Amino acid sequence: MDSIVSAQTVREAAERIKPLARRTPVLTSPALNEQAGHSLYLKCENLQRGGAFKIRGAANLILSIPQSELHNGVVAFSSGNHAQAVAIAAKHVGASATIVMPEDAPRAKMDATRALGARIVTYNRFTDDREQIAAAIMAETNGILVPPFDHPMIASGQGTAALELLDEVPDLTSLVLCVGGGGLLAGSAVIAKSINPNIRIFGAEPELGNDTFQSLQKGERVTIPPPDSIADGLRSPSPGKLTFPIIQQLVEAILLVTEDEIREAMRMLMANVHVIAEPSGVVGLAAALFGKLPAEITSVGVVISGGNVDPEFLKTL
Amino acid sequence: MDSIVSAQTVREAAERIKPLARRTPVLTSPALNEQAGHSLYLKCENLQRGGAFKIRGAANLILSIPQSELHNGVVAFSSGNHAQAVAIAAKHVGASATIVMPEDAPRAKMDATRALGARIVTYNRFTDDREQIAAAIMAETNGILVPPFDHPMIASGQGTAALELLDEVPDLTSLVLCVGGGGLLAGSAVIAKSINPNIRIFGAEPELGNDTFQSLQKGERVTIPPPDSIADGLRSPSPGKLTFPIIQQLVEAILLVTEDEIREAMRMLMANVHVIAEPSGVVGLAAALFGKLPAEITSVGVVISGGNVDPEFLKTL
Repeated sequence: MDSIVSAQTVREAAERIKPLARRTPVLTSPALNEQAGHSLYLKCENLQRGGAFKIRGAANLILSIPQSELHNGVVAFSSGNHAQAVAIAAKHVGASATIVMPEDAPRAKMDATRALGARIVTYNRFTDDREQIAAAIMAETNGILVPPFDHPMIASGQGTAALELLDEVPDLTSLVLCVGGGGLLAGSAVIAKSINPNIRIFGAEPELGNDTFQSLQKGERVTIPPPDSIADGLRSPSPGKLTFPIIQQLVEAILLVTEDEIREAMRMLMANVHVIAEPSGVVGLAAALFGKLPAEITSVGVVISGGNVDPEFLKTL
Repeated sequence: MDSIVSAQTVREAAERIKPLARRTPVLTSPALNEQAGHSLYLKCENLQRGGAFKIRGAANLILSIPQSELHNGVVAFSSGNHAQAVAIAAKHVGASATIVMPEDAPRAKMDATRALGARIVTYNRFTDDREQIAAAIMAETNGILVPPFDHPMIASGQGTAALELLDEVPDLTSLVLCVGGGGLLAGSAVIAKSINPNIRIFGAEPELGNDTFQSLQKGERVTIPPPDSIADGLRSPSPGKLTFPIIQQLVEAILLVTEDEIREAMRMLMANVHVIAEPSGVVGLAAALFGKLPAEITSVGVVISGGNVDPEFLKTL
């Protein structure tokens, strides 16, 4: 297994995940372009299998594990989208899946994960020790851990989203990717820069969960208290050990958006593109819509990273 | 200009409309398949330019008009989606557009049409004489009429949706298309039967707007009072002169759905596929989800015909 993320590992991932991941559409909207002042190309991973880009990484790792090593199943820790992705990929290879989720994860994500046959163990993000729970579950199941972002196979898999986007819109001059632990951003940055060394790569985070922004400023990985942003998929408190140096090297800036901008981006996406994204899913879009990008940028590729949101939440927009 | 709808006119339309119509994605959902008891392939025309399949027909007709005949502009009568489509295509060829819309058309559709630079004239569906208004507008502008469905170029254009769907999923054994005036259904039936003579073609209508259902039963075009279904795009009171004989010849049955089934299909589409359709847009889907198709059918292509719905309406679901 490769210990790095490279253009080659991303291209290998693209082949490997074909049985499980969908080639998602790239959508555009004149109204959104006008609001942004740039031409936006929206790679709709909210229409991906499992409702988010996470299947790309999970499938890449799980499909690379020999069948003989899968008898104890797989284990994952996730606020939701990685959970569903691991459950889908595990089911595909006939392995059991145990998923550890925060008890305040969106119900839509929990229900979907359970419906895929995974066992769910919940914990309290604010009071429980996630590491301890992790150790106990690993000891109990002796399964293979499928980390949410900090693994070369995971980050390489996530990068296939950018590979497809650049394949469809080759002359993009910039990309905006949301950042939780940084798997999508790191994998996308690696493949995009290999295709076009001049492409400008931006991350996007909620102001309330700006761990990667702070880490880049400080020049080292910073851990923040559990973020309380509505972008539940981006609540990881620090960038990854593997992903952070890649981000340091290839990413121009992390753009920060407010909770209100996230809500408005969700509304505008629904009204103008007719697709539903979850709060985390529009953090990159919000950055593009609300003036966070350098003004001279013309064409922007944005990954709409996921669409798993409770219907009741949409009614509050 | 052809006076018939044929496989050739649909294929010519597919070439002609390329500058204006998008190849929309075909999406699937295990949860919807389970509910339906069939494998559903959703051709998402709610993600089409202008938010509905209507751009296909409008572009096909307007792009076939010589520039020299466009100086008085174009005129259309529409509850909304055809209006936007005509406005887009007229703008593309540099012609003015006058659109006559019922005053209770969804605000989203009216606003979008106006934003495209079209002049809007409203009328009351229940009290005004549409024919009279039409005659006055035509006399005033001397423009070219772009009818919503009853024209071979329009029906041929709409049929390109089915052409693309069968190109992507060639082994479909049936198609379900919603019916307003029948342009989409007629054009789709012609091209689908030419590709696969054994394919089974179904129309779908709201129970509250069952003019084509009644017409097929009676063996002639029936006109019903202005329907009050939430499926505002399907409120035409009778099938077309051109489209009805095609439907009689090629369509197996018209499936009827209730208002509640339409609402539930909208909810299920949002929750499981993460796309937004308008009420008219899910009438075919509702038929497939709620047991209206013959049980032995396995694979069903469904056109999600449009996505232009007021955000406030979604909150009532």
